[in-house]
Amino acid sequence: QEVKAPEFGKGILNITGKDNSWSMKLGARIQMLSVSEWTNDDGNIIDPNSNFSIRRARIKMDGFAFSPTFKYKIELGLSNRDIAGASIYTRNTPRYILDAVVKWNFYENFTLWAGQTKLPGNVERVISSANMQLVDRSILNATFNIDRDLGLQLRHHTNFGERFVMREIFSVAQGEGRNVVTGNIGGYQYTGRLEFLPLGLFENKGDYTGGDLNREETPKLMIGASYDFNNNAVKTRSNQGSYMETDNGFHETNVTTFFADLMFKYKGFSVMAEFANRDADDPYAKNSDGTLTGDVVQIGNGVNVQGGYLLKSNWEVSARYSNIELDKAITGKEEQNQYTLGLSKYIAGHKLKVQTDLSYMDIANINDQLMWRLQLDVHF
Amino acid sequence: QEVKAPEFGKGILNITGKDNSWSMKLGARIQMLSVSEWTNDDGNIIDPNSNFSIRRARIKMDGFAFSPTFKYKIELGLSNRDIAGASIYTRNTPRYILDAVVKWNFYENFTLWAGQTKLPGNVERVISSANMQLVDRSILNATFNIDRDLGLQLRHHTNFGERFVMREIFSVAQGEGRNVVTGNIGGYQYTGRLEFLPLGLFENKGDYTGGDLNREETPKLMIGASYDFNNNAVKTRSNQGSYMETDNGFHETNVTTFFADLMFKYKGFSVMAEFANRDADDPYAKNSDGTLTGDVVQIGNGVNVQGGYLLKSNWEVSARYSNIELDKAITGKEEQNQYTLGLSKYIAGHKLKVQTDLSYMDIANINDQLMWRLQLDVHF
Amino acid sequence: QEVKAPEFGKGILNITGKDNSWSMKLGARIQMLSVSEWTNDDGNIIDPNSNFSIRRARIKMDGFAFSPTFKYKIELGLSNRDIAGASIYTRNTPRYILDAVVKWNFYENFTLWAGQTKLPGNVERVISSANMQLVDRSILNATFNIDRDLGLQLRHHTNFGERFVMREIFSVAQGEGRNVVTGNIGGYQYTGRLEFLPLGLFENKGDYTGGDLNREETPKLMIGASYDFNNNAVKTRSNQGSYMETDNGFHETNVTTFFADLMFKYKGFSVMAEFANRDADDPYAKNSDGTLTGDVVQIGNGVNVQGGYLLKSNWEVSARYSNIELDKAITGKEEQNQYTLGLSKYIAGHKLKVQTDLSYMDIANINDQLMWRLQLDVHF
Repeated sequence: QEVKAPEFGKGILNITGKDNSWSMKLGARIQMLSVSEWTNDDGNIIDPNSNFSIRRARIKMDGFAFSPTFKYKIELGLSNRDIAGASIYTRNTPRYILDAVVKWNFYENFTLWAGQTKLPGNVERVISSANMQLVDRSILNATFNIDRDLGLQLRHHTNFGERFVMREIFSVAQGEGRNVVTGNIGGYQYTGRLEFLPLGLFENKGDYTGGDLNREETPKLMIGASYDFNNNAVKTRSNQGSYMETDNGFHETNVTTFFADLMFKYKGFSVMAEFANRDADDPYAKNSDGTLTGDVVQIGNGVNVQGGYLLKSNWEVSARYSNIELDKAITGKEEQNQYTLGLSKYIAGHKLKVQTDLSYMDIANINDQLMWRLQLDVHF
Repeated sequence: QEVKAPEFGKGILNITGKDNSWSMKLGARIQMLSVSEWTNDDGNIIDPNSNFSIRRARIKMDGFAFSPTFKYKIELGLSNRDIAGASIYTRNTPRYILDAVVKWNFYENFTLWAGQTKLPGNVERVISSANMQLVDRSILNATFNIDRDLGLQLRHHTNFGERFVMREIFSVAQGEGRNVVTGNIGGYQYTGRLEFLPLGLFENKGDYTGGDLNREETPKLMIGASYDFNNNAVKTRSNQGSYMETDNGFHETNVTTFFADLMFKYKGFSVMAEFANRDADDPYAKNSDGTLTGDVVQIGNGVNVQGGYLLKSNWEVSARYSNIELDKAITGKEEQNQYTLGLSKYIAGHKLKVQTDLSYMDIANINDQLMWRLQLDVHF
Repeated sequence: QEVKAPEFGKGILNITGKDNSWSMKLGARIQMLSVSEWTNDDGNIIDPNSNFSIRRARIKMDGFAFSPTFKYKIELGLSNRDIAGASIYTRNTPRYILDAVVKWNFYENFTLWAGQTKLPGNVERVISSANMQLVDRSILNATFNIDRDLGLQLRHHTNFGERFVMREIFSVAQGEGRNVVTGNIGGYQYTGRLEFLPLGLFENKGDYTGGDLNREETPKLMIGASYDFNNNAVKTRSNQGSYMETDNGFHETNVTTFFADLMFKYKGFSVMAEFANRDADDPYAKNSDGTLTGDVVQIGNGVNVQGGYLLKSNWEVSARYSNIELDKAITGKEEQNQYTLGLSKYIAGHKLKVQTDLSYMDIANINDQLMWRLQLDVHF
C-alpha cells in the first residue's frame, strides 16, 4: 500500500490500496475571480459595478474500486456559486455533488457509466472549468449547454488504422439536470455524440483542455457532433433553465439540441469552434385553458469561435467571438454578439495560472457592455 | 507515525499519529439508487414514475484523540437527501453533520458518549445504511424510529459466564432531532435500551449488520428492547416528524416509544424482527381556545420481520413483511402491509454490492402500489 | 515526497509534495457546546432554557503552492451555526467557505493577501475560535467586529532594534461580509491596522492566542489599533448586521469603526483589553420620501477587558468584563454590562480542552440574565 504526495498540480494524495485493491487520487482547486462591468449609455459610462468572489472551489476524488475495470469519480463543490440552485426539486438543499459516477469497462472498448456527470454535449462544456483558455466559458455555452444529469452512458471507441480514432457515446438521463431527487417529470433525455480524431490522439487529453499547453508537434484535430432529444422536457433550456409550471402541472414538449464542434492544436496554436441549435415541438408553455404562462423554450442558434497562441514564456494571447441568435418572435430576445480578448500566464500550466479577459457585448437596442475579468487558479 | 492505505472497503486512510497520540480512519461511501413505481387502479397500471438519484454519499472519520480511552466519530452527508431538512430550527442550513460524538471510556465497562449520534432505538435504525440487507429500511422504521439527537449516553456491558453478554444503554437527549441549534423546546428525551446476547457475540459486530455475511458457525442471537420517554415532546413522531405549532407556541405532550427486536444468524441464514409502539398523553395539538390545529401525534403499532439466506456465491435472497397500524380514529390513516422480495450480490461484502428489491404495498381503501428498486453501493 | 501524521493537535496530515513543490497541513476541529440560561424577574427565576449543539466543526488546509513564497489557507465550516447566513446575496446557499486566501510574499517583508479572510480588526476577533480563553467571544466582539470579507490585504512588518516589532496592515475589501457573490453595493471598505510589540515576539504566536499557555518567561506586550472606513456601507454594522433596504435600493452611508486593543502575557498571567467605536455619517436608513425604514447603523462604544492565570496543573481561572453603550437616542438600546467568570482545563493545550463560564448580564430596564456554558474542544 502506498500513500504518495505527488508534485504540484498532480493531486494532494495518490493512494494505492493494499494489494492494489483500489486507488484514489484526491485533488482540490480554487478560483478567485474579480469582475468589473460598465455600460455605455450613448457615450456615457454608467452603472459601473464590480465583484470579487470565490468563483469555484472543488474537491475531486477518482480512481478505481476493487477492480481496475471499475472506476469512479466524485467531484464536490464548495463555493456559493458551485452549490447554488436549491429548489423543491433538490429538497431545498444546496447542490453539493457535481459528479458522482462509476465507470465500468465491462468489455473491450466498451464502458458503462452510471450516476451523475456531464452529458456528452458541446466540447466547451465538457472541458473542465480547471482547464479553460479564457476566464470562463462563452455565452453559447451559457445558453445552450446540457450540463450534467443523472443516468447511464455507454461509451466506446474505434481505431481505424494507426491514428484515426472514433469515439461513440450514448446517454439516457433523467432530463431535468443535476441533483434532482424528486423523480423524473416528463420523459427521459437521450443524447448521442460522435467524435472523430483523424490525426491521432492529442497529447495529455488536449482535445478536452483549453489552449495548446502541450505544443503539439504534429497537427491534431477533433471534430464532434452531439444530438440530444429530451422527450417531454419541462424546462426552458431542455434539462437546464427554469421549470415551465402551468396551472395543472408542467408544460411538456420534446426539445432537441444539436452541437457541432471542433478542436485543433498545433505548436502552441489552438482553435475551438462550436455551433449549437435548440428546437422544440411547442415552445410556448400553456395553462389548461390555452393561455400562455409566459415561459417559452429558448430556441435558436449559437456560434462560438475562439483561438489562442502560447508564447515560449507561457503567456498566451487569445480571442473569442460568440454569437447567440434566439428566435426573437418566440423568446423576445435580441441577437447578441460578444468579442473577447484574453491574456493568460500559465505559471504551472493550468494548475497555477492568472487569466484576464476583456469582453465587449453588443446587443441590438440595448446598451453595450464592457466586462473585465481577472482570475487566479490554484489546483492541487 | 503511520499513514496507511488499507485494502478495499476498510477505509481510505488509516492514520496513527506520532507517538500513538491519536488515530483516524477516514472512510467514504456512496449509494446510487433507481426507483420505479406503479399504482394499480382497478387492474389498470397508472402513474408510473421513476427516479435515479445519489441516495447517500457520506464521509466518515473515527478513531481516538490523545488517549485510546477517548474515541470520536464524525459522519458527514453530501447527497441532497442526506442533508435535507433545513428549517428555522437549524438556522435554515442543510443538515450536513450526521454524527459528531465523543466516547469516553472513563471506567472499566462504562463509556460516556456526548454529542450528536443515533439514539439507542430499534436495531434496524442503528444498523448503518451501509450494511442493510435490502435496498432500504422498512416502513416500520420510517414511521417509528427515533433517529439521531443531541445529548449524552451512558453505555455499559456485563458478561455472564463465558458467552452471555448484556448491554445497557441510557440516553438523555434534547428531544427534537439532529442539528437543532435553536435550543430545547419542551422537556428532554430519555431512552433506555437493554440487549441480551445469550449465545455470545456475533462475528464482526454482525448483530448490527444486515445479512449473515460472516456465516456464523454457531447460532447467534440478540434480543433487545428500548423504552423512550420524550417529556413534553413537540413533534408528531416524538423527536421526528413535524413540529406541532399552535397559536401560542407548541403543543407539548409526553410521547413514549417502545421497541422490541431480535437478530438471529446462523450459517448464512438471518432473521431480524421488530415490534414498535408509540403513545402520547394527548395526541391532539390544540390552539389556546381548544380548537385542533390538525397536527396529531402518530400513535400506533408496527411489526417488521425480515430474513435472508446467503448462497455460497455471495448472492443473497431475502424477504420482508412490514405492518403499520396507526390509531385510525386519531391519525385518520389506514393500516399498511408491505411485502418485499430482495436479491443482493455482495461483490466485496457490503463494501461493493448490488441490491434490488420488489415491494408490494397494500393499504385498505387505497390503490395498491408496486415499487422496484436497484441500488449500487461502493464503500471505501 | 512525504505524508506524515503529526502528534495530536498538530494536524491530521502534514504533506510535502514531490520535489518540495507544495505543502499542505490538513486539520480539523470540533466544539460541543451546552448553554443554559435563566432570567431574573424581580427575584423569580423565569424562562429557563438550554441547548446542546455542535457549535463549530471546521476543516482547515494550509501550506504553500508551487513556491514557498506563495502560501494559501482554506477553512471550511460544517456545523449549522458555521454555515448559517444564507441570503439572496449568497445565492441562497450556506456560507460553507470561511477562509480562502492566498498570501504572496512578493518582496522582503511585504506580503499580499487575496481572497476571503478575516479583516485586520480587533485582536479578539482575529484570535481563532480554536484558541479562545473563555467559551466564546465577548459582546463587544458580537457588536463591533468586522469579521471576514473579500478583497486584498497588504502586510508588512518592521524590526526596530533587537526586539521591537511593528506590523502594518492595509486592506481593501468589498464591504458586505463573507461569501457575497452578487457584487459590491455602495463603495469599498478600507482598513488599516498597526501593531506594536515593544518587548519582542510572543512565543508561538501567543499574541493571537487566548491565555498564556506558553508561560512567557519575559513580559510580552502587543498594542494594536485598527481604523476601518466603509465607504457607502449598506449594512447596520458596517460589513456585518442586516442590509438596510429602502424603497429604492439601499441606504448608503459612510461607516467608520475604530479598535484599540492590547495583549499582555507573563508567566501564565494574561490580559486582553479592547476598545471599540462605530460611527456613521447618517445612521438613519430612509426611503426616497425621507421616511425612516427603521434600520439604523449601530453606532456607539464598547469596552472589553479579560484576564486569566494558568495554574501549574493547566487549569486556568479567568474573568471578563464587557460594556456596550450604543447611542440610545438612535438605536433605542440600553447599556449592557456583562460579568463573566471562566474555568478551563487544558488537557492538551487548546487542542483538547474543557471550558466553562458563568456570565451575568445587566441591562438597564431589562431583566437580568444568567448564562452557564460548558464546552469541549477537540482539534486535530
